[in-house]
Amino acid sequence: MTDESLKHDLARDFYSVWHPCTPRRDQETTPPLLIDRGEGVYLIDREGRRYMDVISSWWVNLFGHNHPRLNAALTRQLEKVAHVMFAGITHRPAIDLAEKLLSLAPPNLSRVYFSDNGSTSVEVALKMSLQYWRQTGRAEKNGFFHLTGGYHGETLGALSVCGLEMFRAPFEGVLMENRAVRGPDCYSCPFGLSPESCQAECFGPMERALEEEGGRTAGVIVEPLVQGAAGMKMYPPVYLKKLQEAAAHAEVHTIYDEVAVGFGRTGSLFVAGTHGLQPTFLCLSKGITSGYLPLGATLAGESIFEAFDGDFAARKFFIHSHSYAANPLATAVACETLALLTENDFLARLQPKIDAIGGYRPLFEQFKWCGEFRQTGMIAAVELVRDRTTREPFDRARRAGYAVYQEGLKRGLFMRPLGDVVYFLPPLVISPGEIKTMMETARTCIAEALGQ
Amino acid sequence: MTDESLKHDLARDFYSVWHPCTPRRDQETTPPLLIDRGEGVYLIDREGRRYMDVISSWWVNLFGHNHPRLNAALTRQLEKVAHVMFAGITHRPAIDLAEKLLSLAPPNLSRVYFSDNGSTSVEVALKMSLQYWRQTGRAEKNGFFHLTGGYHGETLGALSVCGLEMFRAPFEGVLMENRAVRGPDCYSCPFGLSPESCQAECFGPMERALEEEGGRTAGVIVEPLVQGAAGMKMYPPVYLKKLQEAAAHAEVHTIYDEVAVGFGRTGSLFVAGTHGLQPTFLCLSKGITSGYLPLGATLAGESIFEAFDGDFAARKFFIHSHSYAANPLATAVACETLALLTENDFLARLQPKIDAIGGYRPLFEQFKWCGEFRQTGMIAAVELVRDRTTREPFDRARRAGYAVYQEGLKRGLFMRPLGDVVYFLPPLVISPGEIKTMMETARTCIAEALGQ
Repeated sequence: MTDESLKHDLARDFYSVWHPCTPRRDQETTPPLLIDRGEGVYLIDREGRRYMDVISSWWVNLFGHNHPRLNAALTRQLEKVAHVMFAGITHRPAIDLAEKLLSLAPPNLSRVYFSDNGSTSVEVALKMSLQYWRQTGRAEKNGFFHLTGGYHGETLGALSVCGLEMFRAPFEGVLMENRAVRGPDCYSCPFGLSPESCQAECFGPMERALEEEGGRTAGVIVEPLVQGAAGMKMYPPVYLKKLQEAAAHAEVHTIYDEVAVGFGRTGSLFVAGTHGLQPTFLCLSKGITSGYLPLGATLAGESIFEAFDGDFAARKFFIHSHSYAANPLATAVACETLALLTENDFLARLQPKIDAIGGYRPLFEQFKWCGEFRQTGMIAAVELVRDRTTREPFDRARRAGYAVYQEGLKRGLFMRPLGDVVYFLPPLVISPGEIKTMMETARTCIAEALGQ
Repeated sequence: MTDESLKHDLARDFYSVWHPCTPRRDQETTPPLLIDRGEGVYLIDREGRRYMDVISSWWVNLFGHNHPRLNAALTRQLEKVAHVMFAGITHRPAIDLAEKLLSLAPPNLSRVYFSDNGSTSVEVALKMSLQYWRQTGRAEKNGFFHLTGGYHGETLGALSVCGLEMFRAPFEGVLMENRAVRGPDCYSCPFGLSPESCQAECFGPMERALEEEGGRTAGVIVEPLVQGAAGMKMYPPVYLKKLQEAAAHAEVHTIYDEVAVGFGRTGSLFVAGTHGLQPTFLCLSKGITSGYLPLGATLAGESIFEAFDGDFAARKFFIHSHSYAANPLATAVACETLALLTENDFLARLQPKIDAIGGYRPLFEQFKWCGEFRQTGMIAAVELVRDRTTREPFDRARRAGYAVYQEGLKRGLFMRPLGDVVYFLPPLVISPGEIKTMMETARTCIAEALGQ
C-alpha cells in the first residue's frame, strides 16, 4: 500500500464523509486512522500499524476483532438467509436469542422486542411505558425522570432523557419535556462519603421527585452503576435498590439502560440480575453482537406485555417497526456471543483481569493530574485535573484529554477520552500482557501530554 | 424437520418474542412463518414451503435472497474486520460508499452521514436542520412541516413528523409539535384531476403554510412520489417541483425521505435526481444494503456542512453518535448493491418488468372491489373497497386486506397488505414468470377472500 494511495483515500474521506462527533478542524490536523483489518484487541491500519482498541470501538467489542467463532456463526447464517422481515415471520436465531436473553436476565422479564441499536432500544422502552399507562387508564403518566449526567442515545426521544448538556444544547426547546433529577456524584460526594460505605444518601432528590411527580411520571431511566458518556462516572448498587423501592411505591417504571454496561463489562452479565434488581424494562445493544453488527433489544415483563393485548380493532398492540428488526445475521452473531459469554466460566474468569487493571491504580494515583482513578469491573477511568488536591479541572481549551489521545495514536493505543477522562474499556478477551501494555502506555501518554 | 420441532419452536417464539405490529391474538390463529432460508424472490420455511417475498421483506430486498455477489462482498469484509468505530477512524467501504452515493445523488449533495436505519437517517436530517438554523442565527426556525399520510419512522423525533394517526395516537401529547399539511391525494383528487395532467393544484395548503409559518419552520419532510405506509399513495413530481420553489422562497429546508422509494423502486435510482430536484437533505436506508443489514445514510450539501465548522470550543460540530455508524459489513454490502444497480443498464432494463406489472391493471380493475390500481415503477397497489363506484371502504372490522394476506399464505405469497391496500413491491430481480405468478396468484387470493 503506497503512501500516495493512503493520502488519496484520506482525501476522499475528507471530502465526502461527515464523521460523527468530529470537528472538521481536528480532521485537518489529525486525520482519522484508515483501518483495514482487525485482530484480537488490535486494529490494523492500511500501512500495517497496529492500534490497541482500548475502548472496544465505542464499547461494543467483547471478544476481539475477527473472532473465528463469531465469523463462523455469521457465515453459517449468511448461507441460509441474511434477512427477513419480523412481522408475520420469525426465525431460529431470533427465537434462540430471545430465549437465551430471558434465561439470563432478571426473572421478571419475559419478552424481547428487537430493534437496531441502543437509541432504538431506549425509544422502544419509552414508547412501551407511555402506551402502557395510556392503555391502563393512566394517560397522565407521560413524562420521564432521568439522572444528571445520564446518556441514553441521541434520537430525539432518547435525547430527551439525556442529562448531558453537550448532546442536548442544540435541540433544547424541541425536546420532549422530561425532568432531570440530580443523581449520584461519587467523584465529588456532597456527603463526603465513599461508594464502599455509603447508603446512597444522594437519593434524596429522586425520592422527592417521585413523591412530588410520580403520579404524572411514566418511568425513570438510569444507566446502572456506570454513567458512560458522562465520563465513566460510577456509583454503588445501593442507589438502584433505593430507586427500585421508591419507584414501585410511586408506581413508576424503572428503565435500565444496560446498553453500555451489559454483557460482562462490569464483571457480570447484567447489573440488574447481579444485584437482584428487577427493572420494568431492560435496554440492550452494543456488546450484544460483540461489536459485529447493530442490534438492539428491549426486555419487558408479562404485566407490560398483557396491557398490549386486545382485539385488532382496539389497536392496543405495539406498532414500532424497523425494517431490520431481529436481523438474522445480527441475531445469529448475538447467539454465539451469549454462548461465548456463558461457557467455561468466562465471566468468573475475568476476575484476575479486573484485579490486574485495578493493580495499576497506584501508578496513576501518584501523579498530580490524577483527580481520581475509578473502576467497575472491566471499566476503569482516570479523571485528569489541573490540581489533584483541589480537583480544579483543566481549562477546557487546553483539551487535556485530546492531547492524551494524540499521544496514544503515536504509541499504538486508540483511546479517545471523554473530555478529560481517559478510560479503559477493552475487549473482555484482553490478555494480562495486553493489559500491562495498555495501562503502562496510557500512563506514558498522559505523562507526555501533561508532564509528570 | 419434524412437525413437533416446528411446533416447539413456534411455541418458544410465542412465549418469548414480542413481534412488531402484530396483535397477539392474530398470532394465536395465524402463527408466523418460521423462515429457514431464502433463495431469489423466495423465502423458504422449515418444512420446505416456498413463499414469494412480494413486499421485499418490508421493502428492503432488491436482488433477491442469498445473492452470490452480495454474500461474497460481506464475506470478504468479514475476513478483514466486522466493525470499527467511526469517530477518529475511517475505512474503505465507508469511503467508497459515500463517494459512490454522492456521484449518483443530486449534485447539490456533497456529504454523507451514516447511521443505522431509516428512522435514524431522518432523525439526523431533523437534527442537522435544527442545528443549522441555530448556528446561522435563526434559532426560531425550529419546527417541521410534514404531509398528511406521511411516514418517516417511529423513533419519537421521526414519529413527530409522521402524518398517520395509527402510529402517532398512543404518543400524542409528548411528540414534538410539528405541523401536518394536507398533501396530495390523487386517489380522491378534490379537483377531479388525474396525476398525468394536473399541475399539483393541491399544493395550496403547503403554499399557505410556508407563507404563514416559513419564518419559524426549519424544514419540510416528504416521501417523494409514493407515501408508503399510507398505503402506497402516489402523486406526481410536479408537487415536488412546486415544493422546491416555495421552500426555497421561504428559506425552509427540504428533506427527502427516500428510504422506501430509493434504489430503483420507482424505476430510477433516486426520485430527486431523476426529476432534477435538489433536496437539502436526502435520507436513505432499506434498499441501501439490498435488504442484508441495517444501515442509514443522510446526505447534505456543502452549505449545511459548513455551518458546522468552527473551533472545538465553539461546539458547532454535529454530535450524533451511533456505535455502529458506517458498519464495515453493511457498507461493504451497500457498495456491492450500488455496483449491481449501476452495471449493465440494470435500471433501464427494469422497464419491461414495470410494463409487465402494469399489464395486470385490467385484471384487477375489472372487479367490483377494486377502488384503484396504481403504479409507480416497480411498486403497484390495489385499493380494496366495498363498492368501486362510490369507493366506499370496507368496514374496518372486516379486515379485508388481512383476509387476502391469509389467502396468500395458503398459496405461497407473502404479501402483508397495508390495511385494505394490497401492494406489490417485489425484489427488482423478479423474473417475468415470477411477476405472472405474483399478479395472478394475488388476484386469486383477493377473489377467494372477497368474492368475485
